[in-house]
Amino acid sequence: MNEYIKHFDWNIVEEGFDPANNRVSESLFSLGNGRMGGRGNFEEKYSGDSLLGNYVAGVYYPDKTRVGWWKNGYPEYFAKVLNAANWLGIHVQVDGEELDLATAKVANFKRDLNMKEGFLKRTFEATLPSGKQVAVTSTRFLSIVDDEGGAIRYEVKALNFSGDIKFTAFVDGDIENEDSNYDEKFWAEVAKENTAGEAYLVNETLKTGFHVATGMKWAITLNGETQTPAIEVASKEKYVENSAVVAVKEGDVATVFKYITNISSENHPKTELVSKAKAYLAMVSDKGFEQMLAEQAEAWAKKWEFSDILIEGDTKAQQGIRFNIFNMNQTYTGEDARLNIGPKGFTGEKYGGVTYWDTEAYCVPFYLMTADPHVVKNLLIYRHNHLEKAIENAAKLGFKDGAALYPMVTMNGEECHNEWEITFEEIHRNGAIAFAIYNYIRHTGDDQYLADYGFEVLLGITRFWTQRVNWSVGLNKYVMLGVTGPNEFDNNVDNNWYTSYIATWCMEYTTRAVEILKEKYADRYEALVAKNNFKEEEEISKWSDIREKMYLGYDEERGVFIQADGFFNKEQILVKDMDPAQLPIVHHWSWDRILRSNFIKQADVLQGIYLFEERFSTEEIKRNYDFYEPRTVHESSLSPCIHSILAGKIGDEERAYEFYLRTSRLDLDDYNADTRDGLHITSMAGTWMAVVEGFAGKRVYDDGMLRLAPFIPKEWGAYEFNITHQGALLQVRVTEGEVTIKNVSDVALTVAVYDQEVTVAGKNEITVQK
Amino acid sequence: MNEYIKHFDWNIVEEGFDPANNRVSESLFSLGNGRMGGRGNFEEKYSGDSLLGNYVAGVYYPDKTRVGWWKNGYPEYFAKVLNAANWLGIHVQVDGEELDLATAKVANFKRDLNMKEGFLKRTFEATLPSGKQVAVTSTRFLSIVDDEGGAIRYEVKALNFSGDIKFTAFVDGDIENEDSNYDEKFWAEVAKENTAGEAYLVNETLKTGFHVATGMKWAITLNGETQTPAIEVASKEKYVENSAVVAVKEGDVATVFKYITNISSENHPKTELVSKAKAYLAMVSDKGFEQMLAEQAEAWAKKWEFSDILIEGDTKAQQGIRFNIFNMNQTYTGEDARLNIGPKGFTGEKYGGVTYWDTEAYCVPFYLMTADPHVVKNLLIYRHNHLEKAIENAAKLGFKDGAALYPMVTMNGEECHNEWEITFEEIHRNGAIAFAIYNYIRHTGDDQYLADYGFEVLLGITRFWTQRVNWSVGLNKYVMLGVTGPNEFDNNVDNNWYTSYIATWCMEYTTRAVEILKEKYADRYEALVAKNNFKEEEEISKWSDIREKMYLGYDEERGVFIQADGFFNKEQILVKDMDPAQLPIVHHWSWDRILRSNFIKQADVLQGIYLFEERFSTEEIKRNYDFYEPRTVHESSLSPCIHSILAGKIGDEERAYEFYLRTSRLDLDDYNADTRDGLHITSMAGTWMAVVEGFAGKRVYDDGMLRLAPFIPKEWGAYEFNITHQGALLQVRVTEGEVTIKNVSDVALTVAVYDQEVTVAGKNEITVQK
Repeated sequence: MNEYIKHFDWNIVEEGFDPANNRVSESLFSLGNGRMGGRGNFEEKYSGDSLLGNYVAGVYYPDKTRVGWWKNGYPEYFAKVLNAANWLGIHVQVDGEELDLATAKVANFKRDLNMKEGFLKRTFEATLPSGKQVAVTSTRFLSIVDDEGGAIRYEVKALNFSGDIKFTAFVDGDIENEDSNYDEKFWAEVAKENTAGEAYLVNETLKTGFHVATGMKWAITLNGETQTPAIEVASKEKYVENSAVVAVKEGDVATVFKYITNISSENHPKTELVSKAKAYLAMVSDKGFEQMLAEQAEAWAKKWEFSDILIEGDTKAQQGIRFNIFNMNQTYTGEDARLNIGPKGFTGEKYGGVTYWDTEAYCVPFYLMTADPHVVKNLLIYRHNHLEKAIENAAKLGFKDGAALYPMVTMNGEECHNEWEITFEEIHRNGAIAFAIYNYIRHTGDDQYLADYGFEVLLGITRFWTQRVNWSVGLNKYVMLGVTGPNEFDNNVDNNWYTSYIATWCMEYTTRAVEILKEKYADRYEALVAKNNFKEEEEISKWSDIREKMYLGYDEERGVFIQADGFFNKEQILVKDMDPAQLPIVHHWSWDRILRSNFIKQADVLQGIYLFEERFSTEEIKRNYDFYEPRTVHESSLSPCIHSILAGKIGDEERAYEFYLRTSRLDLDDYNADTRDGLHITSMAGTWMAVVEGFAGKRVYDDGMLRLAPFIPKEWGAYEFNITHQGALLQVRVTEGEVTIKNVSDVALTVAVYDQEVTVAGKNEITVQK
Repeated sequence: MNEYIKHFDWNIVEEGFDPANNRVSESLFSLGNGRMGGRGNFEEKYSGDSLLGNYVAGVYYPDKTRVGWWKNGYPEYFAKVLNAANWLGIHVQVDGEELDLATAKVANFKRDLNMKEGFLKRTFEATLPSGKQVAVTSTRFLSIVDDEGGAIRYEVKALNFSGDIKFTAFVDGDIENEDSNYDEKFWAEVAKENTAGEAYLVNETLKTGFHVATGMKWAITLNGETQTPAIEVASKEKYVENSAVVAVKEGDVATVFKYITNISSENHPKTELVSKAKAYLAMVSDKGFEQMLAEQAEAWAKKWEFSDILIEGDTKAQQGIRFNIFNMNQTYTGEDARLNIGPKGFTGEKYGGVTYWDTEAYCVPFYLMTADPHVVKNLLIYRHNHLEKAIENAAKLGFKDGAALYPMVTMNGEECHNEWEITFEEIHRNGAIAFAIYNYIRHTGDDQYLADYGFEVLLGITRFWTQRVNWSVGLNKYVMLGVTGPNEFDNNVDNNWYTSYIATWCMEYTTRAVEILKEKYADRYEALVAKNNFKEEEEISKWSDIREKMYLGYDEERGVFIQADGFFNKEQILVKDMDPAQLPIVHHWSWDRILRSNFIKQADVLQGIYLFEERFSTEEIKRNYDFYEPRTVHESSLSPCIHSILAGKIGDEERAYEFYLRTSRLDLDDYNADTRDGLHITSMAGTWMAVVEGFAGKRVYDDGMLRLAPFIPKEWGAYEFNITHQGALLQVRVTEGEVTIKNVSDVALTVAVYDQEVTVAGKNEITVQK
């Protein structure tokens, strides 16, 4: 824990400069607009410890796999979103002396992330070694309106001297990933153009051949008056700079406006990148910094309208939840089905910036409720686009006839991960991808999606499960051997209940999809049957046989589902009885000891109960929760939210709140001492779920109806959240004993509140007592 | 399969030069003397494909571990026996033209390894690009008499020219391992000395700081007359050479004698290495090549007297078994308890040249029966020397109070391997190490060993097992979770029968050791109790409780021991029903598919039955064999011999012979297309066991009596083997229906032949009919 961030409702504020916190702050003060993003690095030179990080969505490098002992089926590479050109740079020299916060004396340092309007402001006073003092205010943002770039306003006031300030604005593309398997550089220069006032660098990724043009255009004012100093132009490999000198008098303010852009060959022909970059910069510099900033604030207001959560009486909680929502929206906007949500978003290099099942399990629910349906639809289409690769991936492992295994980690659909117990065995990810389709349809009613995209994905996944089970003569049941469940603290287990359960559910839902298609989209169905060589009768009857005879472990004595074979052979110890010095066990225990312990990393049986809650009685849920939670160490940031939601479900409001707290400020308070590596983007969605599903009891079951059953943590006065459902946009306000639903849209919606159905007309509100 | 080796009783012969076979031949024609060894490289320059390889026993480098995903407890490095200075080199220029078999036209090429006398001879005629022809005969050996070096005689005959032949004799220490995790060089030069006639290079291993002085001393004759040509001396970093020109006339023979030595700081003070090297070379060059070679033949004759197997009527088999015995004796001589037997010996780099459980499971039985007892005793002391490290290793994994886990792979006692399913879980190796102590004592009767060394090792191992089991409330038994058995084709299994069985056996044997010590070595026992803080009553009673209540899976229906939990949930397929194109599965299947199949890599349940045969009825052995063998793919070279022995036991002589064949010429015929990497040294012991234990039914049970029950494969006329037991040396000759035992020693021995006890007096023989 490192709680140096000041508490404000809408702002993340750091006061005072502590180099020891710099990497953490760089993560926290990251900016992004879905297309690109970067860490909270300084514009001026900084020679202290820093992870310089800028990232362009979808631009990756296949870093050659590093492995101790090769196993058949391992992928050749791990795709990494690349650390890209640094466009922030504005170096400052005062009479030849470099401004560098590692060598200057720094006072009144403050970073302030304005989440409401989407910009970062930094102010400080620096005394240079010579004694000259400057006051600096930098304001910058990545535009979500003109989303191929952003702008910086960098103001320097001469506090105690008159002299020359030299500004050097540059684009530096000679960037290395800190995370590189073989210490290679991943970028090569393609072209550059450098003229007084604007400069462009086109770099190409090795192997993958993505081109990115990074451009800058700049202007200088003195005390608000536009200046036209002589501009010096200099270049070297993968680097372009402009510099200019401004003569200042004590008290003068010299300001640099730097407009920047990244134009990627993902979105434009390679031959047009520079001209597009020029056009972009001409457009935004014409618009000007102030106008851009105003539009940014307006666009962010729209986002908040859909996704904000208001908490009264608890600024710390308020700040935490908004930080999470802000970062979800910085990372993914849902406009491009080729993009996805990396575990660190644009805030660091760890985990390669690629797609995990986190997307379907955690991010999809968030965007389903806080964004237009096309956002989630694009996330689903992302997987549809990768279907062919998933079929190839399964074929590598010996599956056939269109069976699809989606990768554990991917950028372009190919598997990247190389631990056999994960890569080959943590196959429940396939279930989450199928469930996301179901989840989307039950929230939106858009079953046309099945016809257009969904059925093929469901079929490939179900075919995989069908081949992945085998008949056990010992049990006289179908079994699923050699899997790793969501609890990665047990590997290569047999009959993981969660995996087997979701596998049979996939068979059930794919069967249902066939019925829907036959009924509503008969022509398209016929085409799909032919295209996918679907043997309806034979395949469905096989699924039905497996569903009927699937082994799903149940312990009669305790009345709980058995996480996996052999679980009750483990020594049964509760986390509360552990020596706290041994926690987290992942840092203190060898892997074999973790594996043979009964400790659970994150929800496993409970993950299944969470997904299919309506199929279990509250009594059953409680029994399983009471058994498994005390054995769970929550050593994944994805664990507490599911437990918070289930605790809420079984009426344990205190525990629900406790779990919520464990991740709500995970990064802000650097809970796991790893925020320096980047933010836990995907788990941020989980915190939102803990509030809306855990506290407010939001559910959508098979019938598609929105259900709420809110309670309020006793620490809070009131809370409000916005939720979009089937075209309606609701503002829900919860106070002790009462819930008010305000329909801010024109679409009437019937909602079940505490199991009582109420219809809220458009532009209307109702209040229900608990 | 690549069967280009010609069949002779005592010789390995390659005729004709095929560069495609060169790496295979380099492995096959390796020489070693226990202290050093090297591959069958050429003395003259060779610019074609080759793995130049020379190795000095015990001199290793800790190569930094390479890993994809780090797990707690992984070791920092992998110790590798290093590719050391090349001392073979004698380059030849004919009138300035280099002799290089990659560029010359080669005729009558022949490599001939004389196993009886322990030397390698190579002859060929080469036509150089200019048309000049030479005939070359090279003879070389590593002395097992003067075991810090060897000698080369290199004869060149001018076939069709008169002119100048320039010989360059050198030591090249600028050597890289092909197998290096980070492409680093591992040697640095310490010193060199280069004078006309002799030269010395001292190199140091990085990190470990071993020093090795490699020296050479040379002489030239022309048609048998000693020459004294002018010698040119040249050096560069890590390299020393002498060269001289000899004028020859057509038909002349110029001969180089090169004496070489490796003096290691393992055996001498660093400051004395060069002087020791000089002394060695002075001594052997005085002795002269012919005399050295004669002594070599005599010393090898002694080795063969103990270890030879004679097969009449099957030259192929005869050659195969002698090649195996020869290489076992080249690799390990048993004079130095710091050394051990790497899987590739001195013949390649693979597996790092370090110690596996192969030593105890396969090599110990071989040396027990073919060498003086001190040889195996040194192998046991090797592990005793590593006891402290084994205790540290266990402590890293959370064990305490003196529990010892021996490493899976080691050089100096520290674990080197880094796959969690092996490193942390393939713990049955501990059992093999305990069993080797028992095996030694039942063969030799030397229970003093328990007092001197053995008990402490047994105690550490037994303490480990005691902590490694846990009580299962589900089974009401002790269980052993999360292990990998000898069948590495299943990982992280629960209750592997073999591991659990040998664990309880360790408890039993350690308990018996306590009784023996108390009875015969009471004072020493008291000291051991104090030193090891042994709580006799408490610990023994815990062991007894575990032995009584240990879960050992047994399948009533099939009457077989259950390899591990869940085995009968696997789809049951027999190897004979597999598509042969899928074999070996380790090359064709992804790891998860292998894991969830019922295919077994090597003897697992059957390994236990092999070790503890006398505890099972033949009927039981047959049931288990008939169940498990058909599911075994034998994808380890260590598998067939155990199956051969058990097939012999249950009277299936045909299968016993079939399994014997699978490894008897494994390397000679390049059965697995991997001989190029080096020879399968440790599995060579297995072939010897297949003959002596499988065909001749040799056993020693708890009572220490030598038992024989021979049959003869119908393909053979007769076979003889030598066996040493309790001071007696027997020559056993088996023909159809008859066995003759000749006691060539003075010590009378009672032997059970076909369960009939007969006493063979010294210098006497008896014949028993079947």
